[in-house]
Amino acid sequence: MKTLVVGANGQIGKHLVSFIQDSDGIEAKAMIRKQEQASFFENLGAETVLTDLENDDIDTITKAAEGVDAIVFTAGSGPHTGKDKTIMVDLDGAVKTIEAAKAAGVKRYVMVSSFDTTRQAIQDAPESFAPYVAAKHYADEWLKATDLDYTIVHPGGLTNDKGIGTVEAATEVDRGEIPREDVAKVLLETLKNDATIGKEFQIVTGTTPVEEAVKSV
Amino acid sequence: MKTLVVGANGQIGKHLVSFIQDSDGIEAKAMIRKQEQASFFENLGAETVLTDLENDDIDTITKAAEGVDAIVFTAGSGPHTGKDKTIMVDLDGAVKTIEAAKAAGVKRYVMVSSFDTTRQAIQDAPESFAPYVAAKHYADEWLKATDLDYTIVHPGGLTNDKGIGTVEAATEVDRGEIPREDVAKVLLETLKNDATIGKEFQIVTGTTPVEEAVKSV
Repeated sequence: MKTLVVGANGQIGKHLVSFIQDSDGIEAKAMIRKQEQASFFENLGAETVLTDLENDDIDTITKAAEGVDAIVFTAGSGPHTGKDKTIMVDLDGAVKTIEAAKAAGVKRYVMVSSFDTTRQAIQDAPESFAPYVAAKHYADEWLKATDLDYTIVHPGGLTNDKGIGTVEAATEVDRGEIPREDVAKVLLETLKNDATIGKEFQIVTGTTPVEEAVKSV
Repeated sequence: MKTLVVGANGQIGKHLVSFIQDSDGIEAKAMIRKQEQASFFENLGAETVLTDLENDDIDTITKAAEGVDAIVFTAGSGPHTGKDKTIMVDLDGAVKTIEAAKAAGVKRYVMVSSFDTTRQAIQDAPESFAPYVAAKHYADEWLKATDLDYTIVHPGGLTNDKGIGTVEAATEVDRGEIPREDVAKVLLETLKNDATIGKEFQIVTGTTPVEEAVKSV
């Protein structure tokens, strides 16, 4: 199984490509924006494709997606970038990759979302954070309205701590943090586990090994 | 027929409430954010309702929409406000009123969109304008996915010139300008003309009387 990792040069993306390349039966194609980002992935033995999520159109992203079996969206402007990037990357960038998946005939799509992207979460968010939650909400809604084999993963507060390999995963868990490395582990297990298709779940640091936690959702 | 005008205190909204109040068989309910905005509409004999499109939830907007027969969305952060407002007003605000229409059983919904909100228009827009086009695109898409009796009106560049009462209206017209007062006239005729249901059209200043132009779309 070949998986296109969108936002591969981000921290979750780098961990994910690395985990994929270390796994049997799955290989990564890293979607990156700049040629100088390629060597990291080439050193892992992963294919790369130069595509600009913000500025390229659906046709170009479709070409990047051709021949893969799954797409994982790990890109993100983050909640603290300009709000123009929020709508152009977190919402429109995501929708373009979803449409590219459809156009390229890629059925499997795994979305890295925000912890809570419900309507209520937009309403309850602090004013500075609400646009990011809204952007992720509409991207998730767009995905759920397709007939792709989607999974939506909602991580808690992301940290750069080293992963510990154990998490809590369920439709709803108490708010908490999680290392980006552990998010990447969850994404790999999600890709390997078709029982996660059509589901969305929250993840935070916990005590259950990732493989078991993903099986339980 | 009673029509809830969302964004009534904007310039298109004020013209529209005024035209509605001057017409037979239709009356306006002006949705406004501040009590001090009410007197303008009360002087026109229009009902008012205090609702904050950005901060109030769908339940509150649903209450504002109860008992009306149509909703016209004329609110807009405009392309030059902060991009946080773009997503929270032009996209999320619009979606909340669409959901409120469904919840309140209001079938008729007229959207004031931007001139071109196609996927290609997002792609072609200058970087500073693209987030606004994207926000309007996703609001229009959300509306079209409902089973509301919608019409989407795409005006050219808005001016504060006095209206001349003649326009060009069609699925696609050459890019041009149009006074906000003439946009309001088009909205009134759209409300009166059920043949516009399920349609979207662009409008710019032209030579055809508004009533006739709206009939032709």
